[in-house]
Amino acid sequence: MDPRIVLVEPRSPGNVGAAARALKNLGFGNLLLVEPCCDPLAGEARRLAAGAVDRLESARVVPTLDAALEGCRVAVGATARGGRQRKPHLRIDEGAREIAGIPGGDRPALVFGREDRGLTDGELDRCTHLVYLPSGSEYASFNLAQAVLLVSWELARQGWGPPRGDVPLPAAHESREAMFAHLEQALRTIGFLHDAPSASMMRRLRRMFGRAGVTEEETQVFRGIARQILWAAGKAGLEPCEDEPPT
Amino acid sequence: MDPRIVLVEPRSPGNVGAAARALKNLGFGNLLLVEPCCDPLAGEARRLAAGAVDRLESARVVPTLDAALEGCRVAVGATARGGRQRKPHLRIDEGAREIAGIPGGDRPALVFGREDRGLTDGELDRCTHLVYLPSGSEYASFNLAQAVLLVSWELARQGWGPPRGDVPLPAAHESREAMFAHLEQALRTIGFLHDAPSASMMRRLRRMFGRAGVTEEETQVFRGIARQILWAAGKAGLEPCEDEPPT
Repeated sequence: MDPRIVLVEPRSPGNVGAAARALKNLGFGNLLLVEPCCDPLAGEARRLAAGAVDRLESARVVPTLDAALEGCRVAVGATARGGRQRKPHLRIDEGAREIAGIPGGDRPALVFGREDRGLTDGELDRCTHLVYLPSGSEYASFNLAQAVLLVSWELARQGWGPPRGDVPLPAAHESREAMFAHLEQALRTIGFLHDAPSASMMRRLRRMFGRAGVTEEETQVFRGIARQILWAAGKAGLEPCEDEPPT
Repeated sequence: MDPRIVLVEPRSPGNVGAAARALKNLGFGNLLLVEPCCDPLAGEARRLAAGAVDRLESARVVPTLDAALEGCRVAVGATARGGRQRKPHLRIDEGAREIAGIPGGDRPALVFGREDRGLTDGELDRCTHLVYLPSGSEYASFNLAQAVLLVSWELARQGWGPPRGDVPLPAAHESREAMFAHLEQALRTIGFLHDAPSASMMRRLRRMFGRAGVTEEETQVFRGIARQILWAAGKAGLEPCEDEPPT
């Protein structure tokens, strides 16, 4: 198991340091910071990293979540329990089992949001899986570094048992995103998507494709379909429309 | 599960605060501090306790480990891996299972030592069980609050039911088949499917939809897409080719 831990806009250097320590404790190597709102090498970060300052110093800072997920087949977003669920929202133990069963699931990205606001809808859309930490309490808000530890721990646990399954290798993040963009363009052009509902419709499609763990080859199939739809639409004289749907 | 968390001579207020937060997150109530070497109500402790300041304020300070363990049937000492073992030294997952199976094991004391030196021999002697946290790394020294979180987590796990992820209900056979027929008709009409290869292409699509466990509602979404493709194709003057499938 060799996950990359992705922290989106962390605000507290202490959390970044404690997360670095947690991941080193579990034998994991990669820390990525998307637009950190703090100095990840601040004294407080170093102090809490303790023997894991090397992980802090080798952390990569990237400008966007997409950059952090490049080449990644499985991206796991940690979210609070409840909320509007866009895709199956798995309790972390179950989620870890599922992820470990996917080819490529041994190198997942584990994505954590801001201390106060978590991940945005757009960021959650980019994840293939969503997990939550069960809490026996009305106070279910875990500290960021503690959430990193628990999610990593549950994935590390999977290494204690036997491997399983015969599930195909999911496509890389950028192929998935290119497919969604292409499909969206095609569906917009024929008037299936329009205005506000289109975001939630794309989200539904993402949810379904996410559950399937769409493969590289399948993204090509769907891009072929999108291309063919656009060809037919061109022949019909249809333009990608902004507002007016045909009925 | 209602453990008491016992910290022996903690030195860092931040750790005491973070431990209080962790135990509240997991629905546990009792924090006991044996001769703390810091002010457990210091600003740093309160800051890291966040929404669990109540647990910090209700923490009992006691002069000895014996006082902390009064009335306790099961006392679990957390120690580093290795070292001279005095009693069976269980990996925490195994230890948690064993403890949960003992009468009185639902109210154990979980005993954690000093940040730098852990528990003394005399203190370990007072524990009925010893557990360690597995680390995938040469750097096996967990932060005190993180150790509290992981040991508590593993005990809390024992109370979890079977996983109840919200995997959606798949569509009925006939809805799925109607969707495939409709999609096939649309893809045939825009020339994406033709002749012999179409069967194997539809098989691919079926495989992907099958993995996703497409829901009733999603079959409706895809039939909507098929309808819209057929509308655009009609506008383009495209006809379904002869060997068209039933609708």
